[in-house]
Amino acid sequence: MNCLKLKIGIIGAGRIGRLHAENIATNIREVEVKSIADIYMNESLEKWAYSIGINHVYKDHRKIIEDREIDAVLICSPTDTHSKFIIEAAQAGKHIFCEKPIDFDVKRIEEALNAVEKAKVKLQIGFNRRFDHNFKRIKEHIENGKIGDVHILRITSRDPAPPPIEYVRVSGGIFLDMTIHDFDMARYLTGSEVVEVYAIGETLIDPSIKQYDDVDTAIVTLKFENGAIGTIDNSRKAVYGYDQRVEVFGSKGCLIVGNDKPSTVEIYSEDWVYSEKPKYFFLERYRESYIDEIRSFIDAILEDREPEVTGLDGLKPVLIGLAAKKSLETGMPVKVERV
Amino acid sequence: MNCLKLKIGIIGAGRIGRLHAENIATNIREVEVKSIADIYMNESLEKWAYSIGINHVYKDHRKIIEDREIDAVLICSPTDTHSKFIIEAAQAGKHIFCEKPIDFDVKRIEEALNAVEKAKVKLQIGFNRRFDHNFKRIKEHIENGKIGDVHILRITSRDPAPPPIEYVRVSGGIFLDMTIHDFDMARYLTGSEVVEVYAIGETLIDPSIKQYDDVDTAIVTLKFENGAIGTIDNSRKAVYGYDQRVEVFGSKGCLIVGNDKPSTVEIYSEDWVYSEKPKYFFLERYRESYIDEIRSFIDAILEDREPEVTGLDGLKPVLIGLAAKKSLETGMPVKVERV
Amino acid sequence: MNCLKLKIGIIGAGRIGRLHAENIATNIREVEVKSIADIYMNESLEKWAYSIGINHVYKDHRKIIEDREIDAVLICSPTDTHSKFIIEAAQAGKHIFCEKPIDFDVKRIEEALNAVEKAKVKLQIGFNRRFDHNFKRIKEHIENGKIGDVHILRITSRDPAPPPIEYVRVSGGIFLDMTIHDFDMARYLTGSEVVEVYAIGETLIDPSIKQYDDVDTAIVTLKFENGAIGTIDNSRKAVYGYDQRVEVFGSKGCLIVGNDKPSTVEIYSEDWVYSEKPKYFFLERYRESYIDEIRSFIDAILEDREPEVTGLDGLKPVLIGLAAKKSLETGMPVKVERV
Amino acid sequence: MNCLKLKIGIIGAGRIGRLHAENIATNIREVEVKSIADIYMNESLEKWAYSIGINHVYKDHRKIIEDREIDAVLICSPTDTHSKFIIEAAQAGKHIFCEKPIDFDVKRIEEALNAVEKAKVKLQIGFNRRFDHNFKRIKEHIENGKIGDVHILRITSRDPAPPPIEYVRVSGGIFLDMTIHDFDMARYLTGSEVVEVYAIGETLIDPSIKQYDDVDTAIVTLKFENGAIGTIDNSRKAVYGYDQRVEVFGSKGCLIVGNDKPSTVEIYSEDWVYSEKPKYFFLERYRESYIDEIRSFIDAILEDREPEVTGLDGLKPVLIGLAAKKSLETGMPVKVERV
Repeated sequence: MNCLKLKIGIIGAGRIGRLHAENIATNIREVEVKSIADIYMNESLEKWAYSIGINHVYKDHRKIIEDREIDAVLICSPTDTHSKFIIEAAQAGKHIFCEKPIDFDVKRIEEALNAVEKAKVKLQIGFNRRFDHNFKRIKEHIENGKIGDVHILRITSRDPAPPPIEYVRVSGGIFLDMTIHDFDMARYLTGSEVVEVYAIGETLIDPSIKQYDDVDTAIVTLKFENGAIGTIDNSRKAVYGYDQRVEVFGSKGCLIVGNDKPSTVEIYSEDWVYSEKPKYFFLERYRESYIDEIRSFIDAILEDREPEVTGLDGLKPVLIGLAAKKSLETGMPVKVERV
Repeated sequence: MNCLKLKIGIIGAGRIGRLHAENIATNIREVEVKSIADIYMNESLEKWAYSIGINHVYKDHRKIIEDREIDAVLICSPTDTHSKFIIEAAQAGKHIFCEKPIDFDVKRIEEALNAVEKAKVKLQIGFNRRFDHNFKRIKEHIENGKIGDVHILRITSRDPAPPPIEYVRVSGGIFLDMTIHDFDMARYLTGSEVVEVYAIGETLIDPSIKQYDDVDTAIVTLKFENGAIGTIDNSRKAVYGYDQRVEVFGSKGCLIVGNDKPSTVEIYSEDWVYSEKPKYFFLERYRESYIDEIRSFIDAILEDREPEVTGLDGLKPVLIGLAAKKSLETGMPVKVERV
Repeated sequence: MNCLKLKIGIIGAGRIGRLHAENIATNIREVEVKSIADIYMNESLEKWAYSIGINHVYKDHRKIIEDREIDAVLICSPTDTHSKFIIEAAQAGKHIFCEKPIDFDVKRIEEALNAVEKAKVKLQIGFNRRFDHNFKRIKEHIENGKIGDVHILRITSRDPAPPPIEYVRVSGGIFLDMTIHDFDMARYLTGSEVVEVYAIGETLIDPSIKQYDDVDTAIVTLKFENGAIGTIDNSRKAVYGYDQRVEVFGSKGCLIVGNDKPSTVEIYSEDWVYSEKPKYFFLERYRESYIDEIRSFIDAILEDREPEVTGLDGLKPVLIGLAAKKSLETGMPVKVERV
Repeated sequence: MNCLKLKIGIIGAGRIGRLHAENIATNIREVEVKSIADIYMNESLEKWAYSIGINHVYKDHRKIIEDREIDAVLICSPTDTHSKFIIEAAQAGKHIFCEKPIDFDVKRIEEALNAVEKAKVKLQIGFNRRFDHNFKRIKEHIENGKIGDVHILRITSRDPAPPPIEYVRVSGGIFLDMTIHDFDMARYLTGSEVVEVYAIGETLIDPSIKQYDDVDTAIVTLKFENGAIGTIDNSRKAVYGYDQRVEVFGSKGCLIVGNDKPSTVEIYSEDWVYSEKPKYFFLERYRESYIDEIRSFIDAILEDREPEVTGLDGLKPVLIGLAAKKSLETGMPVKVERV
């Protein structure tokens, strides 16, 4: 093949930025990560970048935006910079992959989406779970009519350990930080919009987060446009690991997807049968999905088609999350804002 | 053993009355079912009664109430007769096993419970699921501290097929007829009272039940006194059979209990791995529990201890069910009435 | 129903004789156990017999054989009396249910079968596992062609604890006492005869059984008439309980059946996921099958059809067991004797 | 890191050679594949080599052997060249990774091992399954005493489809081609040597392989030095995919490891519960293990320690396979030759 590789710049060299860089380096041959920028760029990050073949390393993300050779950018910087960087990248004619959430402010999200639309560039949002082998399979079965009409959606989504308290402070709260993935999954699987939510929550794990009006244990009830209903339960701390299960019940059957386990070994002993806990960490559980979402983004560019996770898919879960937040505050069900 | 058998009379010879009669005849040797009464008593019922050794058959339940030899009665007649019969039996000094629910009217329940208290007889309510081998095991593990403090309770409870529409009309609605078992399970497993509920529901299976302001698909969110939260999802029609699962998540782990299956056979074929559906029918799934609840009632009498399911245990789920009903009507969360 | 009940006498009031008596008393209404005989009959056994409604209790089994009212006998006495009692009962025109094995001596088995044939009475052998819900299901799937032609049969059959050493002494050895059930299962499931066996075994659990030339851990390889091959593995001591699994692999798929468990509860904890061990004891695991085999025997009499487990089905596994024994002794594969 | 990468040459660019090359390119940074040789080298292979960064491409493997810069070779050529290439590479002072089996001829294997010993280079044999996440875990549990002493080993190993008939012709037969992996697993898991085998087999899938005196369905019984016994069953065609299961039963418990599945999705329908078949293809199932075995080989070189799979580990399964072959021919158990 003689054609040139797609050239990509990454903005933000934190955990997720580095993950994408390494995934591309080892798994996606048609792409070259030309450059990476991080406001906290330092020697050790530089070394890491060079070691995986990224030859340009900046503090200033503008160096990437202004580079004519760059076809697309991955925005992996903190949430409060997302909408600004989307607008800049769109105006520079770059295709954009942006981590979730786009922003906590709906107006700023809309400005970013408008800029993208005007520039006619691709924008994909980083809801990686849509690319998980388990959830992808469920989605296919629903679309193939395996369970008829969807009646009830159940999502269990629990983290192995709560994030640092400093993170909680700026995370936007559990519904915009953690449940947002479940809201996306809810829309993705049912193929319908959430119209109303009711949220309850408690601080059962770490009382210190109460100061930020946040909770660590929550249940959110959902009403969908198509008549289906749903329930999500979240905890910031499942001692047995990362618990990610989904169940979709319909008129013709039920789809249930459990956790992946590190091995299938069972130990039959005098007292119990032991088997392994779910994979502990999200990077382990969703490893493949991070690769596949980037591959899908690249394909959307190369084939000039709509990305699998659009800007609207980025906006909607924020609206649901904001409604859930309001519901928790008021103790009342809250309608999700329309766009 | 030379001692006399405990003598029992059964009021109501419908499906559940006959089930108890047969269970006692074949499984509980220390008890004799002396008599059975049913307002619709007929020749075929009489024959059945004689065939299993019940020698006295009446239309009028008073014959049982007034029989000095009778130690205890099982009330298996329609719900609207329960409180009346409880009062009569209590006043006659009989111990009482009464099918759930006691009544839909809280005042009448309270009158019945007062009569029982005054007469100092035993009263056990027919929440048989507490005696199911799976749920009993979960309860033990919770009490032994296996999962620490309870944070989240999830109940899935789905029937294989909706009841006849005439039954729906008088059933008191899905929350008092079907979910009431789940409300009891919620109290039983958490060991805490439900203080507030929020219910949503839809008519996705059979629109004809709308005329009775009932739904066939529902989600109820629960807040418990001890801070735990819970969610119940119900459907009147799971095509794959009777779906009865519970999950209790706590600070130290999670308990999950699935359905019983008729066999453990798996078929590995060219396209799928096939295994059996859950047991289809509640009498099949809960067969043992019906025997065990009566055994427990008899033991409570013989050992002169409090029954495992008390009159208060009969009242509380009705209060939760009434709150859920009001929540569905008003679209608002509703506090459960205190007693 | 006005018709008279089938009248049965039981010879042998050991564990299995009492089990059948109680199963009939509580589960099989069309049968009356009129009498029971045991050479060691005593007061406590008599009391037990009366308590479940058996009104005639003897030391001498001839009292049952000579009783004109008796339609059928269950032979539950020690193995070395089986063939003699079969002959006596047959000559007296009684139908016969006989526990396995008929005998360890092929000639005596043949004499017994001849007597049965001459008397034209029914004879059913107590291979109860054929009536187990799991194995019955597998058999149906095989007959319905779900896995095509059978290629490989795998049986795992392990006891929770070795029998007392005095029992080992007279048991006929592991192949005639324990594996005999698996040989029957092999014939039942494949629908083909075993033509050659090769057996290896070791004394890994209790060296004291070596004095009786027996082993406690064994693997038997089978060649079937239809070309299929099979392997059985046995242990006298599985610390995790009674382990009874079967796998049948064929040209179109594979059937796998696992153990029954007391509950479906799983405990997710910080270190492992715990679930329950298989049912520990054969009476617990095969409870229903013991009832069903008697029911089937009764039906064979009432419907005048061939029993589901014939005399030949009783003879064949003994021939296989004797071949396995010889193989263990000689270290060579051994052909199974034809009849 | 400034240190030079380990330089490797690959001999044989067939499926497995290319697999290792790609695995190293994308996953093992401390290694550079400098060159690859294949007697059938062609333009398309060259292009592929360059695309993954292999800059030297030869027809003649001697070019690699004679290259002073090369630290180690991977021998991925046909089996009949293995021992010759091992000797050449050893004499040139290269460390060697060689695909299994080393040879079908014991004398030639011994010559190769002698050459390796004399040259004091590392030799690792490609029994990749030892590096499989499931089997590795079982091994750890055994070594940690989780099941006490090993009594019974059961291996099920079935391919999804038979190899081409031309391959069967030169494969050495099912025991040296397919079961050899199971023989290795048997030694690896029990930590004991196989001293005697008994093999039976049939041609149930494709009669045409009979011309090569081969079978497609087989059971092999094993006796181990430490008293344990084992059974392996093989089929060339499991319609449901690649079936790789192991069970190790011991004095304190039992370890069971099942197949990996593409997803955990279950579909509950009106007739069955459907779940996915095992992964279909060995490259898919054992993907990680191929990477890990090379990583282990590289580590053995860098840390100057004995490889995890030694030359003796390469020889022993061939001896067992030859004994199994002889057993099938003679119909008798055969002792495994000692070395």
